Parts: sequence; structure tokens; C-alpha cells
Amino acid sequence: MLEGKGEVGKPVILVTNDDGYKAAGLEALVEMVKPFGRVVVVAPEEGHSGMSHAITIKVPLRLKQRKRGDDITFYTVNGTPVDCVKLAMSQLFTNRMPDLVVSGINHGSNSSISIIYSGTMAAAIEGCLYGIPSIGFSLLDYDESPDFSASIRFGRVIVQNVLDKGLSKGCCLNVNIPVLPVKSVKGIRVARQNRGTWREEFEKRTDPRGVDYYWLTGYFLNEEPEATDTDEYWLNQGYISVVPVQVDLTSYTELERLKSWNLEHVTISNPEKTQ
Amino acid sequence: MLEGKGEVGKPVILVTNDDGYKAAGLEALVEMVKPFGRVVVVAPEEGHSGMSHAITIKVPLRLKQRKRGDDITFYTVNGTPVDCVKLAMSQLFTNRMPDLVVSGINHGSNSSISIIYSGTMAAAIEGCLYGIPSIGFSLLDYDESPDFSASIRFGRVIVQNVLDKGLSKGCCLNVNIPVLPVKSVKGIRVARQNRGTWREEFEKRTDPRGVDYYWLTGYFLNEEPEATDTDEYWLNQGYISVVPVQVDLTSYTELERLKSWNLEHVTISNPEKTQ
Repeated sequence: MLEGKGEVGKPVILVTNDDGYKAAGLEALVEMVKPFGRVVVVAPEEGHSGMSHAITIKVPLRLKQRKRGDDITFYTVNGTPVDCVKLAMSQLFTNRMPDLVVSGINHGSNSSISIIYSGTMAAAIEGCLYGIPSIGFSLLDYDESPDFSASIRFGRVIVQNVLDKGLSKGCCLNVNIPVLPVKSVKGIRVARQNRGTWREEFEKRTDPRGVDYYWLTGYFLNEEPEATDTDEYWLNQGYISVVPVQVDLTSYTELERLKSWNLEHVTISNPEKTQ
Repeated sequence: MLEGKGEVGKPVILVTNDDGYKAAGLEALVEMVKPFGRVVVVAPEEGHSGMSHAITIKVPLRLKQRKRGDDITFYTVNGTPVDCVKLAMSQLFTNRMPDLVVSGINHGSNSSISIIYSGTMAAAIEGCLYGIPSIGFSLLDYDESPDFSASIRFGRVIVQNVLDKGLSKGCCLNVNIPVLPVKSVKGIRVARQNRGTWREEFEKRTDPRGVDYYWLTGYFLNEEPEATDTDEYWLNQGYISVVPVQVDLTSYTELERLKSWNLEHVTISNPEKTQ
């Protein structure tokens, strides 16, 4: 459907996000990537923060083209960020895949363990599962209208590098940007995912009918505050962090340990031998 | 709230799932684990297949205790599988954490790349992020009332081993069970996550008002059909697969490659040097 419209040799860039098509971060991302090629936006109709890699299977999806005042192709989907990527690949890029998938700019951090809750990063991961170089961008600012200048300026360097050099099959980038004016950003650092968890503190309230309910809040627990090679570390130092991401969740060290359990000796003749 | 009710030394086991509290798989999982200790079920009110690691932040959560005819403590939550684990930890296990978190038994496979879309495995991962040994169980049968005999029999062996030997911090198990009668299951194999992707084939339809809509369908594309050490391989051979799972998504090989991009030389004085 979109094939052949782009200029020869000009990259086609799929843009999506998880804060919905009206988010300022989406517009900032379009601004970031439009110098590089033809931009196609396929974004959720509503915000989907915390939607992780969710897909929509109970409700039929709808793809709606929207008009803009410029030459950006713009669609919305009544689904999640992953739905947007899947539907775009299936219905819009039927002959020629995009050359790059970018997601964001998320309003809020997706560093460390936040990656597994992140719809922004899920869309980037979905892109790389199609074999397309993909990048998720997140600014560590939850404001509705933050300053995206540093994200755009430094983001372009990262996009240029990815377009020039590619990413390995099955890999994408998790880029987080500190809340700093352009001139105060110290630079870019390649890093690994920091170990940590979110610890939940639900706020318990009672509704007018006397029934309890809970709002999710929480704080980040850094499990390796001494590390100097992680995304958390570099962000705290004023740098943009770039974590290369892949989707094999196997723990190879635990795999070796499990072999000593001798589970392969369990058979139907003694399925409960260990009880 | 639940502390002190269990017998001394008897494990407390948190059970959840993503198919909702009425699913047959949840009841089969309770059946599997109840010989091992005191069971507390905290399950979603509705099915959440494909919800991945989604969390609920826009809607307040409610925790509802439900009566049963046995001594199983039973709650439901108007949220996702991950919400169930978080809310249970925060509101029910305030002094003593459970000794084990089990999730499932999912109606359908969560092998290979399906793990990243899986609410069942997200709950297990959430459990291990709290430092609790956690296991997700999935039966490769989408029927509403499948035969869970093999899952229960062999699942107990795995549960017993985990209770006896523990799992390393930040690790959980992804257990998939082939659709076979107990006597035909060949055994249990520890495996790594198979490389693969889902390729989407949306079914396009038109509603009575003439508007197009799409139902997500799709097929699994095995990217390493020759491998003999993966979950896909062993499941196809009639074995139960056990994949140890961790949550560091960093690609360490790509990290080394990215270092050659010299992104650390990018500064504000030349943020667009590569363009």
C-alpha cells in the first residue's frame, strides 16, 4: 500500500509510541527523524503506558488514516503499541518493509527493569522481531510538554548511526535521555541494563460506596548502585544511555545449574519420585 | 494480613494466572500445588491473554475475596496478572512473603518468543523480581477444558524440586507441557528459548457500517528448526520443556559492536557531526 511512494534510496521510517497519537513526544520523534527519510506514523489512539508487550485479541482492530498539514503519513490504531507495529507491517508495508522503526519519545524513563513494563520498548522490540533496525526513545520527564531539544539533537546522531551501520538481527536499542538542556547533556554512553526492581506502594482509598480500591504507585530499587557501566549510572551522570536489547530470556547460568537436578530421569514410571 | 495463618514450616504458595479466575487451568494449578503447602489464589477477574507484562495505572484496582468450599484463600483483582502479584505482595503478604509463586496453567503455549507476549510468564517474572522462586506453567492446548493430568503429575515434580533446591535470584521457570496423555509424555527436559517470531496474518473484515476492521491471527516462524536444545524441539519430541528465565535484555555481543561506533565522542560541540 505504501510501497513505491518513497523516493528511491530514501529510507522509510515507521514511527509509533505508547502515549498515544496526541502526545508531544510523538511529534518530537517525527521532528527528530523526518530529515532522514519518508515518515509513516502508526500510533495508538489512546495512551498505553505500562502496556508492555500486550497485544489485542478480544477486540477487532481498526486502522484510521488522519490528515495532517504536512507530508507525513499518519494512521491511528485502537490498540497497543505492538498492535500498531504488527498492523502496519501486515497492512501498510506489504511489499517493502520500513528501513527503521522508532518508538517514543516516551514521557518517562524506560531504563533498567522498566523496559519489561514499557509499551515504547515493546514496539521497538516488535520492530526488530521483523528484522528491522529499531530504536525506542524515552525522556526521563513525565511532564506533558517537556523540553525535547536534547532528545532530538542527540537522537539524530543515534538514528544516523543506525541507518549507516545497522543493528544485528534481533537487536534493538533502548535510548534514555536525562532531563537536561541540550548544552548540559554530557554525551552518549553505550551501557547494559541496570539490575533493579520496582517496589510497589499501593495507595489504598475507599470509594463513596465504602469499597476499598488501590492506586499503583512505587519506587525504583537499584540493586547495583555501585555499578559504573549501566544505563542508570550514566543517566545519573548526565549522559544519554544506549542499551542494545535482545529477546532471549534464557538464563544460561541457571540452565547449567538446573542440569544437576536430573529432571531428565523423571519418567511416567516414577513421575512423583521426588515427593 | 495472611501471616501466621499457615502451619509452621509449611510453604505458602501464591497462585495466579492470565486466563481469569474461572479458567480450568487455574483450578488444575491449585490441584497441582495444594499438597505442598497453604495456597493463596489471587487471579484476574477476566482473561488477560496476550497482556504481557502490562500493569494498570489508569484504573484503580480492587481486591475481592471470594468464598470457596475448601480451605484455599481466594481473591480476584480487576487487573492484569502482574497487578495480581504486585497487589498480593503489597496488601496480603505484608510481613511474610510467599515461598513460591506459580502462574497458569495457561491454555496455550508460551514457548519460544511467545514468552514476551505472555501474561502467565509476566506474573512468574514479577514473582522472581520479588526474589521469590516462581514458575509459569502452560499447556499446549487452547481448549477450555483440556486434560491437565500430565501437567499436574509432572508439574509436581518440578514444584518439589524448586521448593527443595530454590532458584537463583532473579530467575524463574517457563514450563510448557505437550498435549499428551500422562503415559505418553516422554519426560522433562531443561532447554533454552527457541529463536522465532510470530508472523501476523490479520483477517480483514468489514462491519455493517462499511468500516474495515482486523482480527489478529498469525503463525509461528521457527528461526532455528535444526536446533536440538530448545523448548520447541523438546515439546515437538513429546517432552515437557523447562526454560530458566531472567530479565536482563542486554545484548552483550551487540554492546561490544556498538562500542566501535564511538558514540562517546559525540558532544554538544558536534552533536550532528555524523549528518
